[in-house]
Amino acid sequence: MGVKVGIIMGSQSDWATMREAAAMLDELGVEHETRIVSAHRTPDRLWDYGRSAVERGLQVIIAGAGGAAHLPGMMASKTRVPVIGVPVQTRALSGVDSLYSILQMPRGFPVATMAIGFAGAANAGLMAAGILALQDDALAQRLDDWRAALSASIPEEPSDD
Amino acid sequence: MGVKVGIIMGSQSDWATMREAAAMLDELGVEHETRIVSAHRTPDRLWDYGRSAVERGLQVIIAGAGGAAHLPGMMASKTRVPVIGVPVQTRALSGVDSLYSILQMPRGFPVATMAIGFAGAANAGLMAAGILALQDDALAQRLDDWRAALSASIPEEPSDD
Amino acid sequence: MGVKVGIIMGSQSDWATMREAAAMLDELGVEHETRIVSAHRTPDRLWDYGRSAVERGLQVIIAGAGGAAHLPGMMASKTRVPVIGVPVQTRALSGVDSLYSILQMPRGFPVATMAIGFAGAANAGLMAAGILALQDDALAQRLDDWRAALSASIPEEPSDD
Amino acid sequence: MGVKVGIIMGSQSDWATMREAAAMLDELGVEHETRIVSAHRTPDRLWDYGRSAVERGLQVIIAGAGGAAHLPGMMASKTRVPVIGVPVQTRALSGVDSLYSILQMPRGFPVATMAIGFAGAANAGLMAAGILALQDDALAQRLDDWRAALSASIPEEPSDD
Amino acid sequence: MGVKVGIIMGSQSDWATMREAAAMLDELGVEHETRIVSAHRTPDRLWDYGRSAVERGLQVIIAGAGGAAHLPGMMASKTRVPVIGVPVQTRALSGVDSLYSILQMPRGFPVATMAIGFAGAANAGLMAAGILALQDDALAQRLDDWRAALSASIPEEPSDD
Amino acid sequence: MGVKVGIIMGSQSDWATMREAAAMLDELGVEHETRIVSAHRTPDRLWDYGRSAVERGLQVIIAGAGGAAHLPGMMASKTRVPVIGVPVQTRALSGVDSLYSILQMPRGFPVATMAIGFAGAANAGLMAAGILALQDDALAQRLDDWRAALSASIPEEPSDD
Amino acid sequence: MGVKVGIIMGSQSDWATMREAAAMLDELGVEHETRIVSAHRTPDRLWDYGRSAVERGLQVIIAGAGGAAHLPGMMASKTRVPVIGVPVQTRALSGVDSLYSILQMPRGFPVATMAIGFAGAANAGLMAAGILALQDDALAQRLDDWRAALSASIPEEPSDD
Amino acid sequence: MGVKVGIIMGSQSDWATMREAAAMLDELGVEHETRIVSAHRTPDRLWDYGRSAVERGLQVIIAGAGGAAHLPGMMASKTRVPVIGVPVQTRALSGVDSLYSILQMPRGFPVATMAIGFAGAANAGLMAAGILALQDDALAQRLDDWRAALSASIPEEPSDD
Repeated sequence: MGVKVGIIMGSQSDWATMREAAAMLDELGVEHETRIVSAHRTPDRLWDYGRSAVERGLQVIIAGAGGAAHLPGMMASKTRVPVIGVPVQTRALSGVDSLYSILQMPRGFPVATMAIGFAGAANAGLMAAGILALQDDALAQRLDDWRAALSASIPEEPSDD
Repeated sequence: MGVKVGIIMGSQSDWATMREAAAMLDELGVEHETRIVSAHRTPDRLWDYGRSAVERGLQVIIAGAGGAAHLPGMMASKTRVPVIGVPVQTRALSGVDSLYSILQMPRGFPVATMAIGFAGAANAGLMAAGILALQDDALAQRLDDWRAALSASIPEEPSDD
Repeated sequence: MGVKVGIIMGSQSDWATMREAAAMLDELGVEHETRIVSAHRTPDRLWDYGRSAVERGLQVIIAGAGGAAHLPGMMASKTRVPVIGVPVQTRALSGVDSLYSILQMPRGFPVATMAIGFAGAANAGLMAAGILALQDDALAQRLDDWRAALSASIPEEPSDD
Repeated sequence: MGVKVGIIMGSQSDWATMREAAAMLDELGVEHETRIVSAHRTPDRLWDYGRSAVERGLQVIIAGAGGAAHLPGMMASKTRVPVIGVPVQTRALSGVDSLYSILQMPRGFPVATMAIGFAGAANAGLMAAGILALQDDALAQRLDDWRAALSASIPEEPSDD
Repeated sequence: MGVKVGIIMGSQSDWATMREAAAMLDELGVEHETRIVSAHRTPDRLWDYGRSAVERGLQVIIAGAGGAAHLPGMMASKTRVPVIGVPVQTRALSGVDSLYSILQMPRGFPVATMAIGFAGAANAGLMAAGILALQDDALAQRLDDWRAALSASIPEEPSDD
Repeated sequence: MGVKVGIIMGSQSDWATMREAAAMLDELGVEHETRIVSAHRTPDRLWDYGRSAVERGLQVIIAGAGGAAHLPGMMASKTRVPVIGVPVQTRALSGVDSLYSILQMPRGFPVATMAIGFAGAANAGLMAAGILALQDDALAQRLDDWRAALSASIPEEPSDD
Repeated sequence: MGVKVGIIMGSQSDWATMREAAAMLDELGVEHETRIVSAHRTPDRLWDYGRSAVERGLQVIIAGAGGAAHLPGMMASKTRVPVIGVPVQTRALSGVDSLYSILQMPRGFPVATMAIGFAGAANAGLMAAGILALQDDALAQRLDDWRAALSASIPEEPSDD
Repeated sequence: MGVKVGIIMGSQSDWATMREAAAMLDELGVEHETRIVSAHRTPDRLWDYGRSAVERGLQVIIAGAGGAAHLPGMMASKTRVPVIGVPVQTRALSGVDSLYSILQMPRGFPVATMAIGFAGAANAGLMAAGILALQDDALAQRLDDWRAALSASIPEEPSDD
């Protein structure tokens, strides 16, 4: 069977953020592909990616973009495969532009929006894993372990380093 | 088998918004339960709901709340079942407070945040259905049909009333 | 020759705003067509509209949308015909979501963004007329007259009713 | 008798901010403990801390957190001991996310919110001291002295250094 | 002994909000006084109120104001008695102006800021009660009971009306 | 001698706000003129008004406008007579657009900006009077009296009406 | 025939942004002139530029400014030649002040507003080219080629560099 | 005769901004004094300064402050001498907190608010000079010259330096 998670982003410059998603999936042992799919510069690529998502067996699409960030929402309009959106932080508006462009989808086309920036990208990986874990007990166990390890890593008291 | 989608909300007043999620799930033939679980007023209920979510067979939790909206994020910390967050519109800050409280989760605990208000609640239902459809071909078909019907319903031209 | 201005909008509900654009074009004697083209619900319609715009002789496209308003920017990615964007006012975020989704286009795909709401829609009509007037002396004259009449209509002093 | 002020924070990274609170309490001679209590990563620790606060003799809890900052509000739901919240400044949203998550508590669960960042943390220490001073005349005197010294330290005129 | 809680507000128009604080204190059996003290229109009244607060035995001051809301912060500069600030919702800026004017106090003069509007005013009453309860076991019990009753009042499921 | 205060506004619709300025000046016995001067629709009128302001003996210009509110700043560029700006509240952006357009003047051209809306317009009248009072002892006395009466009008306690 | 595109800006400091517009026009082979025209410091220059725009044969004016950015809107009031506005990023308000001052024009005077900062300036050049291309087939071809090259330059996958 | 312009500021750290006002007054030959007057740390100094302003012959007070910036408004409540407010830029909220605290004064107490930061401080000097120039022809001439020189200094074209 093919890869189940696609990580797509609007441009090479988004990769600095989106590789957090890829790293998280690696850590959880979830195979994934990474693609640059620009809503505006490569709309046909977006079309093809969306149209073939179900038949290719994709189960989650993680889409990151900044500014007038149309990629996640347009992907959600092309496929019923769940789309997770990551608002990339921007220069002038700190990613609030990315956020509103991704979040405020009209009735009919949900995008599962994550926090702005790095934490959001990492969490997109975790959300994807959580969705896949519904059908994959081993992954569910790895996710539980990851969460338990995170909790266990928190010291009781802050230190001055 | 038990119900797979839980719709929870912080208070009775959130129901006006959250019933859009319930209505959407009804429309798509997805069984669900609805509960009031207040992060602040009934924290133990939140604890129990989160702790038992996996064993009860819940596959998606839709959580709506307004203001300092801690319910979706706290639920995400208690269970690996995917949590979809709906920011309820508020009086003074129009739901931007709800949005930031739900969206800006730290690395480790994603909440799939939807648009503020009614559209977001309806989309939470669709997102839940999209996740369940990964394992349910009949639901996938109903979701495809729903999407096709939505597209088909759009007239070519606007009318003056 | 065919119509030179296309007014498109994301949904029937945008018509309340966008008819200001149509009315302005009527007032200036500029033929136009009006279409509902939803970026998310009818993406193929968007594709076709954009792809055929040049050959159909369209010279300006006015696109209005609200929320995660992807229509103007996606249209700008599909055609080099100038696109004027109108951010429709929204319930929770007053159209700031629409604005950022339309305005913050990446290098390569400009959208000529107008003010939020009614004034912006009327101005979209004027901007379209101004562009066409570059090749149409009669329209240029009508536009000059319209502007002169507007200036002449301003009373010297405010009145109490 | 045990310590009367607990300073808790969501993560080690909040300590850079929260040590201003600790330093202020040191300056005023108020004993305190410092703990990392993450609402999301160590929810049970939060539960225990809140549940035992009264019986341990805590009189004020200072809680700092950033982003979707649920710690102060969740603590306020678990104990009637007054909770002072400090919004930690964040990367993308400058701490407005932290602020709204802490401030906008629903009826029933107040959090005494301080300014965003360093000044807010220092002021949390002063507010805690002000509350304890209601029962501690010596502390009241030290607080009065501290305030008088602050006022006395202000030069009449600005200097160019 | 005299009254321990003073509720002050910038103008008569703030009373619609601030009576929520008074009502909460009534409900919890905490005596209080209510005064109009305008930072700008009656600065001397502010001075006197602040200067005499300790000797009059006030233990908490609840101060509500809107717009350039200077009352809470100026009161905090005049007395070490803990000041709780309530940002009153405003016409143009929804109370964000009130909030920033109250919250962003410099190091030295904390104001315990509550949520914008009605909920914030009610919570100011609860916070005041929580502070007094540190020295008043009977009030502590009433506060515990009030909180327990609030929790107990939450139904399990939302109802359609 | 001629009138010393000019109240100008961008359109008839601003009069609802700006008459607060006129009423205040009436109350303080300060003669004034009222004019509609639209920066965009009647730029030549703006030019003439600004160019003749000094020779006509104007000592203060109060300018109100909404949206992209260019009138106050453009007037400040045309005359050294002090310009007081009043941001008129707007539909979509609540007057924050008016505010930023008036306030954020570059080095060289100050506009004395007042609060958004009605209070700001009334205060523009008071500010104008305060400037004229520097050369007019009788007006200074009337202004002192007005201020004293305002302070005296504040009741000690709020009333339930 | 003379130059068809004028790039104007409020000050020398805007050139760092606006040269992106000039560079784009150079790249597309569109002649242009660049001028400093300050709405506040050289209002007569603005007047003259606007008044002579049509007779000089200008077909598009690109105007960039920051803060209370009145240049684009004032130019739009002086000429029917289409004006494209570029909000320059600012220190305190990140260009939101520039944006609102340019965008929120009243009915009658559209400004085709671009994104804040560098991308907006580059896009202003593209928008100008798109308008001129309506009458210039060779330019239309160069614009099509530029767009095609941009699309072709996007790699399939992100690289770690 | 004594000095006519007082420049006051909330703390030594505001001097970096406020010296722009002093420098401008120096440039225009207007004598002034500079004082640190903290609304919160030295409220009595504020009281005294305000109470004696008229009798000391002050004709304009320039007040700069940051955060919960109460100094300008409190000064305006203590004297009818015109107060010009300068919002100092802040760390977390970029001076929007300072702005709202200064600008949004209630009916009765205007503060002539300038732009956030350096430009606003310089403009405060110019506004003060403009007010004094109403009674001082020599200063009026110097101000006219300053303005003319500013306009004359603007080059026709931007340069690449």
